[in-house]
Amino acid sequence: MFLRNKKVFKGNFFHAPTYGKAEYLEKTLIVVNEKGIIEKVLLQSNPAYQSVLLESKADNSLVDFGEKFILPGFVDLHIHAPQWPQAGVALDEPLNVWLDECTFPLEAKYKDVTFAKKVYTDLIRQLLNRGTTTAVYFATQHLESSIELAKISALMGQRALVGKVAMDNPEQTHDYYRDESSEQAIADTEAFIIRVRELAKNVIQGVYPVVTPRFVPSCTDETLRGLGILAQKYDTYVQTHCSEGQWEHGYVLDRYGKRDADVLADFGLVTNKSIMDHCNFVNDHDGELFAKYGTAIAHCPISNAYFADGVLPVNRLKKQGVKVGLGTDISGGFSPSLYDNIKQAVISSRMLTDGVDVTIEQGKRGVPNSRVSVLEAFYLATRGGGEALNLPVGLFEEGQIFDVQVLNPNQSGNSLPGFDLYTEPLSRLAKLLYLSTPANITEVWVQGNKVK
Amino acid sequence: MFLRNKKVFKGNFFHAPTYGKAEYLEKTLIVVNEKGIIEKVLLQSNPAYQSVLLESKADNSLVDFGEKFILPGFVDLHIHAPQWPQAGVALDEPLNVWLDECTFPLEAKYKDVTFAKKVYTDLIRQLLNRGTTTAVYFATQHLESSIELAKISALMGQRALVGKVAMDNPEQTHDYYRDESSEQAIADTEAFIIRVRELAKNVIQGVYPVVTPRFVPSCTDETLRGLGILAQKYDTYVQTHCSEGQWEHGYVLDRYGKRDADVLADFGLVTNKSIMDHCNFVNDHDGELFAKYGTAIAHCPISNAYFADGVLPVNRLKKQGVKVGLGTDISGGFSPSLYDNIKQAVISSRMLTDGVDVTIEQGKRGVPNSRVSVLEAFYLATRGGGEALNLPVGLFEEGQIFDVQVLNPNQSGNSLPGFDLYTEPLSRLAKLLYLSTPANITEVWVQGNKVK
Ligand SMILES: [Zn+2]
Ligand SMILES: [Zn+2]
Repeated sequence: MFLRNKKVFKGNFFHAPTYGKAEYLEKTLIVVNEKGIIEKVLLQSNPAYQSVLLESKADNSLVDFGEKFILPGFVDLHIHAPQWPQAGVALDEPLNVWLDECTFPLEAKYKDVTFAKKVYTDLIRQLLNRGTTTAVYFATQHLESSIELAKISALMGQRALVGKVAMDNPEQTHDYYRDESSEQAIADTEAFIIRVRELAKNVIQGVYPVVTPRFVPSCTDETLRGLGILAQKYDTYVQTHCSEGQWEHGYVLDRYGKRDADVLADFGLVTNKSIMDHCNFVNDHDGELFAKYGTAIAHCPISNAYFADGVLPVNRLKKQGVKVGLGTDISGGFSPSLYDNIKQAVISSRMLTDGVDVTIEQGKRGVPNSRVSVLEAFYLATRGGGEALNLPVGLFEEGQIFDVQVLNPNQSGNSLPGFDLYTEPLSRLAKLLYLSTPANITEVWVQGNKVK
Repeated sequence: MFLRNKKVFKGNFFHAPTYGKAEYLEKTLIVVNEKGIIEKVLLQSNPAYQSVLLESKADNSLVDFGEKFILPGFVDLHIHAPQWPQAGVALDEPLNVWLDECTFPLEAKYKDVTFAKKVYTDLIRQLLNRGTTTAVYFATQHLESSIELAKISALMGQRALVGKVAMDNPEQTHDYYRDESSEQAIADTEAFIIRVRELAKNVIQGVYPVVTPRFVPSCTDETLRGLGILAQKYDTYVQTHCSEGQWEHGYVLDRYGKRDADVLADFGLVTNKSIMDHCNFVNDHDGELFAKYGTAIAHCPISNAYFADGVLPVNRLKKQGVKVGLGTDISGGFSPSLYDNIKQAVISSRMLTDGVDVTIEQGKRGVPNSRVSVLEAFYLATRGGGEALNLPVGLFEEGQIFDVQVLNPNQSGNSLPGFDLYTEPLSRLAKLLYLSTPANITEVWVQGNKVK
């Protein structure tokens, strides 16, 4: 763990304190302590502004972002780190072919820790370059390379929540890639939790173990039960796929005569530290359950277009009080960028609203009031992620962690059009969200530490 | 006009000779004559390969792209050049607000040719940087700045089809931004055609005037009739919005008791050089009409998610024999990139197939057989555009124009994951299409001339 000094950051900050509302903090000073926590946010109008600015110049603690714009670092709630090499491949295949012929053979390779190191290092570098400062990872079934993912993220300065994947159901997994037994799945998960917690003692930005049943079909009852007990015993995060596609949803109904959410709840896997991935097929009952337990949904709009057979009704769930954030779902989703997922969240929501088949009468082909605005999607990628994880990230407020991405709209590789003409802050925020490429992100900081 | 020498290009080329099928031409030689036309495509197996390679090295005519990958330049069939400054702005507004409060006031500014020059230069630079080598532009109502757009594209080396927008219906346009009369709309269009044809004499990559009624609502009958006559007299291209959204489609039905496509056909605007933009609401009858006349559709999937109330049934139209290409529709679509539109064409088509509202039974919520694969979308952006315009672009074959974009998958700003692991050519093509950013496009050539 490297110690830091207190710093004062000066810049033009955007954040979304509430769903659908964004704030612009122009030429604002943010005082960050040696632990990377925001101590003060000083607007230009603040009486202390000038003295703090002068002091920070005098003692060299000022970091001046100049004319650039600063967004909170993004939170990716769902990403399969081992699937990174196949991003963009075979997406025209049906899900079973994609899994059995592409994904599982690839994940099986992570038995080789050297291979894992290489992939994970590249992935985390590229995520940081795109402004993703917190990520919730599925690793693979393998204990050692899952530990490696936690170590690499710790070293590279990204906040990571990592799960060794549990998958032991012989009927729904392959010989070459599964936990040998329920006992092993549970024992390895416990070993993983203990080792990551040990590692975490020296990681300022945080690294967290996540109890990770792949999804109900790939686990036996014993494993699901054992994982629920571990989650409680160690008070860990939980993640799993829930009611993602039509097949999965139907499989669980067949096996238990119950809905996915209820089954997971019965096994103790629906908690206020649980992330349920996708959830396209959840109904009002499931939503209530999640709201009651404080369980979050990882919305992965790009992936869903390929593998989920429908669009997540974000607004309906938000209205029920369910916490929702965004995920890339690499590589069901091809893009490592939450910018792309912000845009697709907006687009998919409009298709849900308007419907898609023009041969059906207008008003009868969509679901009214389903629109997610770009500001709402921005909230999902920032504060929504923080809420989902019960972590103080995504806002520029006292007590929050200082995770940021610094954007230059006039970068030579991608100069944003009309930035000088559209000076209204929210127009500029929309442009930054819609039009930035990785080239525009010039710096990334996690917990007060520069990582790009 | 600058003369060039014959050149021999060596590289790894991808193209899509038929809808849904792509070909990989590894370490292939393409001989391009001084007019920028492909004379020969020599595979490695060709007996003449070695001698042509040696000769081209000897006489310095070899351009070796090394390990990079080359795609045909993209054809953007629909783009509003003047709307570039507002890309990404106000997309959460309803269409009438977006038009009346944002778009028309912005377009009115192009009375100022200096302003136009600045915007158009930046736009064309950025389109070329993204691999768009041919673009079909709406300019504005103003004659002079529309001419300017044609001049700038000619100068910067992009192939452009440009229309001065005709819009004279006082009931559907604003005082501050319309043609003063039908006579003026027609006279200015004719002057525009003549001047662009004069300009074209010295433009090797081509610049073409396009007869451009904005859409039926914004034109009087006299203007629509006059424009149809001009299109025939000068044998020009035609472009207009057709059956884009529910409102427009309904308006035309009300005014004429006929469908949009029929009305446009009556006025002589449906020809084998016509581009009909969007067309989301066309039915089988309209499709037959387009197929009969050889009229093309510009599919703009990103824009459609915001303003078209439904998804274009691409496969149904392709099956009818209608020519289809892709458009960005800046700024109804926020992205200047056809890569983004390729991806959204795939995604939107899957939503059309699967449906969006999961509360409706599977099989009843979508339109079967509507999927557009990434290879099919690649076809639309390349050869599909060439077909639409009756221009020999989009393929690497004898007689085609040499327009290319050169991609480096290992660019430092965006190194594509798994490129060394997934060596199957079509996997690599999918990765290039799904994961490239402008940083990966290192060179762009139009008609044998390097423009990036
Ligand atoms: Zn997943
Ligand atoms: Zn348009």
